[in-house]
Amino acid sequence: MSTAWEDRYAQRTSRMGGSAIREILKLTEQPDIISFAGGLPAPEFFPGEDVIEACIATVRDNGAHAMQYSQTEGLYPLREWLAGQMAGLDKKINAENVMITSGSQQALDMIGRTFIDAGDRIVAESPTYLGALQAWNIYGAEYLAVPSDHDGIITDGIEKVLEQDPKFMYLLPNFQNPSGVSISMERRKKLVALAAEYGVPIVEDDPYGALRFEGEELPSVIALDSQRDPASRSYNGSVIYLSTFSKILVPGFRLAWVVAPKAIIDKLAMGKQAMDLHTATFTQYVTNEICRSGFLEGHIQRLRQEYRQRRDLMLEMLEQHMPEGVRWTHPTGGLFLWVVVPQGMDTVEIFKEAVKEKVAFVPGEGFHPQGGVNNTMRLNFSNARPEQIRSGIARLGKVLKRLMN
Amino acid sequence: MSTAWEDRYAQRTSRMGGSAIREILKLTEQPDIISFAGGLPAPEFFPGEDVIEACIATVRDNGAHAMQYSQTEGLYPLREWLAGQMAGLDKKINAENVMITSGSQQALDMIGRTFIDAGDRIVAESPTYLGALQAWNIYGAEYLAVPSDHDGIITDGIEKVLEQDPKFMYLLPNFQNPSGVSISMERRKKLVALAAEYGVPIVEDDPYGALRFEGEELPSVIALDSQRDPASRSYNGSVIYLSTFSKILVPGFRLAWVVAPKAIIDKLAMGKQAMDLHTATFTQYVTNEICRSGFLEGHIQRLRQEYRQRRDLMLEMLEQHMPEGVRWTHPTGGLFLWVVVPQGMDTVEIFKEAVKEKVAFVPGEGFHPQGGVNNTMRLNFSNARPEQIRSGIARLGKVLKRLMN
Repeated sequence: MSTAWEDRYAQRTSRMGGSAIREILKLTEQPDIISFAGGLPAPEFFPGEDVIEACIATVRDNGAHAMQYSQTEGLYPLREWLAGQMAGLDKKINAENVMITSGSQQALDMIGRTFIDAGDRIVAESPTYLGALQAWNIYGAEYLAVPSDHDGIITDGIEKVLEQDPKFMYLLPNFQNPSGVSISMERRKKLVALAAEYGVPIVEDDPYGALRFEGEELPSVIALDSQRDPASRSYNGSVIYLSTFSKILVPGFRLAWVVAPKAIIDKLAMGKQAMDLHTATFTQYVTNEICRSGFLEGHIQRLRQEYRQRRDLMLEMLEQHMPEGVRWTHPTGGLFLWVVVPQGMDTVEIFKEAVKEKVAFVPGEGFHPQGGVNNTMRLNFSNARPEQIRSGIARLGKVLKRLMN
Repeated sequence: MSTAWEDRYAQRTSRMGGSAIREILKLTEQPDIISFAGGLPAPEFFPGEDVIEACIATVRDNGAHAMQYSQTEGLYPLREWLAGQMAGLDKKINAENVMITSGSQQALDMIGRTFIDAGDRIVAESPTYLGALQAWNIYGAEYLAVPSDHDGIITDGIEKVLEQDPKFMYLLPNFQNPSGVSISMERRKKLVALAAEYGVPIVEDDPYGALRFEGEELPSVIALDSQRDPASRSYNGSVIYLSTFSKILVPGFRLAWVVAPKAIIDKLAMGKQAMDLHTATFTQYVTNEICRSGFLEGHIQRLRQEYRQRRDLMLEMLEQHMPEGVRWTHPTGGLFLWVVVPQGMDTVEIFKEAVKEKVAFVPGEGFHPQGGVNNTMRLNFSNARPEQIRSGIARLGKVLKRLMN
């Protein structure tokens, strides 16, 4: 018996937080289930042959470096390329403002490690990204949950929350995970102004921004923040911006990036060094090859088109199959939409019934930073094929109709 | 000014620990310096064409999975292969006892996150691996440093240390980083017996075990521990074992693994999920291809031969160039040897002089868990080419002779 370790663990169990959702999601791995539960891109659009070409070029042109240990902050040319991609910021930032991480999850963990002390309060949208809560719970974070509507986090009255001396605000402005909702231009501006007024910095998490299906592109929060000081030639504001290659290239490389003032990058790098020394050099070189080839632009266009079709189909099926009293969001991009069933129903119970009918989703409770909301669910529309969306939503409608009668 | 973040960071600075060594090592990156400071494998032996072949096979045969999100614990077939490689344990463990991590550094961080509470005491060899101290300092670990000699950690009197209720012992039994010293068979047995007697578990860190140049292979501590319960058909002991592909394949993939009782793997996986969801899928598939092809065995033989030659050369040069009063270890494997200069000398000061002469090493102070030892240095012999070893050690000898006169 591994008692020696078990004893040592017992004291800490409460702080780790049970990973209930992880256990639930295991149920969705049965092969005959249609799952809208994950957050996976569609594998049929992975650019396999382009990856092969980039691997060959990487080894032949940069083998000795691409297979070696490397810098904690990441591959310089890739950081440089990413800096140039940041709309509205490209004149104020350079490679030194960018750091490569092992997925955005690591960036969230790194931010927690660097900035969160036990008992610190974080302002978060309700619902918000579960992975951020999981990353920050271990550091003893507490949450000030702010409700959101179809224009994102509700800023009316948010001053009262900011008065409670939160460590930072956590925002997902574009096609948020889980709700699919975006923060309106007006609210973005207000949030940036209030952040400055109250001295509360912002973590802007933007994994889906490139996947807009319609409507005008909105400036990032970090870009708006940089405009507060138009004369400055470098960005020294109070937003840490995160994005990732997982949704626009391949998730299997685990590559994401952080944009921030250089002083912040330096602090985060100290944390990352103790976490994994650096992100895999090889996949950074491969991704740099792909980025520099100009491939991504057309690829993202294709993903937008394909995912828009899947979103359209899912919305159409929901309209067709959901009983009255069920509502859902209409995201203009991203991978997810959000369903609200009538008060008093519990989506964990619905989930159990749905799995019997071979369809799955994620019950929404875990996405609410202060818990207590049981009638929400997240549906992913990027991973399932059109025929699966058709029958999956029909099955889900059947389950709901039965339970609501 | 990014004051909002800076303020928030100030409170935590002390806990992060300055990365003095990181700053020092930046000096060694000047192109004309001969550096024995890093811990890098020799890039001229990286198997570039084999990596290309494995990348092509990975995309063609497993593209949709290899580029997708995957399980936190790692790629099952790779875990299975690794389980089969664990000498002395292969009948008691399977894939479920193995977890893939983003380098051993992540495994160390994960162990800290899962088991260490502020103020916990950890038994560590003095000197010991700096990266472990960096990983665990953030969790508030304290250290009970036990001196070592040419047979590794000194076990005489270690009972007194174990009586102080340490959380675990941290051991590097083979060709330890930084000293190059291995723990003798007798001491391994004694440590396993004492661990059981005192109920203190062990973290066994074994990045270099495969790189033995001479002498008989010694059983791992985890294998010895498993023999305490010969009748058991699974391993439920109290050792967590770590190793890595960084020294035997390529470091640029950032792939390592943990072996432990399944109950421990489950707990570590919960931590890892919040840290980076999982290690890059793609490089795990590529590495699995390479492992399954049988390539590694011959490759490791070659590395042993090449690194042994470099060690021999470095020992010969030390003999030739070091002034009297300087001593060093004679490692039978691995990447490092350890030099002790006379008491009263400070290797940080020597380092500054050495850099002027265009030769670098790592001052040893940071490797001593309780600090206070200033007359040691680590030399790496795997990365420099033979001609660099010749002139680098000659330069270092010149510096020392000058300072010791």
